[in-house]
Amino acid sequence: MTARKILFLILDGVSDRPCAILQGKTPLQYARTPVLDALAETGICGIMDPVATGVRPGSDTSHLALLGYNPEKYYTGRGPLEAEGCGIHMEKGMIGFRANFATMDANGVITDRRAGRIRDTTALCTAVRERVDLSDFGVSFQFRPGAGHRAALAFRGEGLGAGVSSNDPKKEGVPMPRIRPVTDDPRAAKTAEAANAFIAQALPILADHAINRERVRTDLPPANCILLRGSGEMGHFPPFPEKYGISGVVISAATLITGIGKAVGLEHISVAGANGSTSSNLEGKIAAALGELEHRDFVLVNIKGADEAGHDGDARAKAAFIERLDRALEPLADIDSTLLLVCADHSTPCDIRDHSADPVPVLIRGEGVRVDHVRAFDEISCATGGLHRITGPSLMPILLDLINKTHKYGA
Amino acid sequence: MTARKILFLILDGVSDRPCAILQGKTPLQYARTPVLDALAETGICGIMDPVATGVRPGSDTSHLALLGYNPEKYYTGRGPLEAEGCGIHMEKGMIGFRANFATMDANGVITDRRAGRIRDTTALCTAVRERVDLSDFGVSFQFRPGAGHRAALAFRGEGLGAGVSSNDPKKEGVPMPRIRPVTDDPRAAKTAEAANAFIAQALPILADHAINRERVRTDLPPANCILLRGSGEMGHFPPFPEKYGISGVVISAATLITGIGKAVGLEHISVAGANGSTSSNLEGKIAAALGELEHRDFVLVNIKGADEAGHDGDARAKAAFIERLDRALEPLADIDSTLLLVCADHSTPCDIRDHSADPVPVLIRGEGVRVDHVRAFDEISCATGGLHRITGPSLMPILLDLINKTHKYGA
Repeated sequence: MTARKILFLILDGVSDRPCAILQGKTPLQYARTPVLDALAETGICGIMDPVATGVRPGSDTSHLALLGYNPEKYYTGRGPLEAEGCGIHMEKGMIGFRANFATMDANGVITDRRAGRIRDTTALCTAVRERVDLSDFGVSFQFRPGAGHRAALAFRGEGLGAGVSSNDPKKEGVPMPRIRPVTDDPRAAKTAEAANAFIAQALPILADHAINRERVRTDLPPANCILLRGSGEMGHFPPFPEKYGISGVVISAATLITGIGKAVGLEHISVAGANGSTSSNLEGKIAAALGELEHRDFVLVNIKGADEAGHDGDARAKAAFIERLDRALEPLADIDSTLLLVCADHSTPCDIRDHSADPVPVLIRGEGVRVDHVRAFDEISCATGGLHRITGPSLMPILLDLINKTHKYGA
Repeated sequence: MTARKILFLILDGVSDRPCAILQGKTPLQYARTPVLDALAETGICGIMDPVATGVRPGSDTSHLALLGYNPEKYYTGRGPLEAEGCGIHMEKGMIGFRANFATMDANGVITDRRAGRIRDTTALCTAVRERVDLSDFGVSFQFRPGAGHRAALAFRGEGLGAGVSSNDPKKEGVPMPRIRPVTDDPRAAKTAEAANAFIAQALPILADHAINRERVRTDLPPANCILLRGSGEMGHFPPFPEKYGISGVVISAATLITGIGKAVGLEHISVAGANGSTSSNLEGKIAAALGELEHRDFVLVNIKGADEAGHDGDARAKAAFIERLDRALEPLADIDSTLLLVCADHSTPCDIRDHSADPVPVLIRGEGVRVDHVRAFDEISCATGGLHRITGPSLMPILLDLINKTHKYGA
């Protein structure tokens, strides 16, 4: 028998380094994960450099590499992918930005780059969309909320260029910088002017908004400032169904991942209660994935919570989330005719609160797989597995071959 | 916790193949090495192709690759690197050569390519420097001793080219060839003429020198002839501190390695009694390294003795040196805040008395490392380790990531 479908499960940032607070274990080693361990025991495991050995990947460059789109060739910045993921259809000539709602004090200093991880910015986005006016710059814009403090902005207009800097100071306690062109191209200068006007016009709108007045009253950081980064035009991706001969969907609450899926030609499936954080509706996502597999060849599911805990440097929270995640994966023990891939897109070590270049654990389970001796899904155990150390761009070819969708090279 | 510094320890040529005289073990397996084994047990291990799989590296191309300077792009020959390592500052247009003192018999046949591994050629170099005159060729020269029988020569003059052959016959018992241009470039012809004149003028100076008369009297091979090879101009290296954002030093008695370090922008630290052979002051080098780590980010230490024993084909001597080396490494067991790398730059199998393309063992130890199950530092044990099989050019990215000095690719 040969599996016919692929469930492509990305446990975003789940991979880590040994944590002192977890007795020198990684969160994956420390957490009790009977479901993942049973999958490892009945599958083949390995470790994977998502982009290349020693390269510290972003979630965007990693997902592109894992899906077989070489980021060196296809990556044009985070902004257009975030915009697409937030529901903005990025057409040729448009410039997309990732946006964060942040907190600025009276002196113009950024005091919280995520505005206390505010949960919902829909109303704030609507207010900004209705009242900011960039027509003096010949620019129309779309501005839409993402998960949590995240949003996306896109400009449309004649003669706009993507080569501009960010107004995100990257650390807290320092003033917000202005956006500047990073090339001599006058189109970049025009984008920078419009972006700075957008940021400036939004300040009083946000400061006066009822949501923020209530946040100030209750000692929560107000979401009174917008930070833009990742400026770019959308790349041109060969559509996934044509490239691989299979149809597919993406299930993700992270707008960046949704945007990548949509950009490469995967249909986005929404799941109620999925929010890209440790409180996400994991069971709902897995149920949706299994439902989609009834009539799809390929389902990409991204589960973000572990990455968030890693960025927060909270190893105990990461391990606790992994245990909850493991329980939510229980229905995967029974799937058949489906090749299951489980891996991280990158490591997010709690000790550095950011991504790292450490390889990630990977497991493949399903008909035809050469089951190895690995009995636990973690960074150390998987390193002894039958897949050895592979790179992200080799993943799709391996999976497609196992579902008999590759073509012979030669005769 | 994250380590902040890197101790980059190269056990030159320590890697080998199974040796019949050692009951089929490699010298690293055969030698008793409790310190290296304890480091392996508390670190992550693997094997490494210094340049690429199946490529037999020189010490120069390997060190360049390990330091992240692709030898395909940066390597311009051994000569200029040796010259720099011997204290000759190689400027644009200068031609550098590696030189060996050798023994020639009355018939012009090379009978010992290393002049009985003569220990010190300082006085011989001075005599040659004072009495050889290349002004007829419009050439001035510098000629300086290296470790043991080694030295370096550099030419300065108008219209010199690097494309010339060597007068080293590469084996003993055959006549010394003349140096010839290997291109049609007239500049190469000019270099060849000056080099042949240098060699010819040095012969009587060396034959008459008191040191050599004494060597002949005591039945030691006289250092009466100079063999030149590795002709080249110095390459242009992006400075290490700018490339990686860390400052560093090189501790090495091998002038080639010193020269590579200086060429890429590492400061050279001398250690009394370090001589690049099996009798070197190993404890002094390790102490100097630990001292430098007090105020440096990166310390490269090259220990050459095992390579020498490999070139001599003496597996017992190699194993004995490894045991002495192991004892000298004892202070490394206690370092903290420092990432320790231990590897060879290439294999030097005693059975072939030269470098080979066999991968080398590698171990990384320090905060954040995913400790694997390997408990011995040797070619066979390390091959089962958590690093799997990496290439030399991926080594610096891996180390820099572990000290949190890499940059995220994407977002």
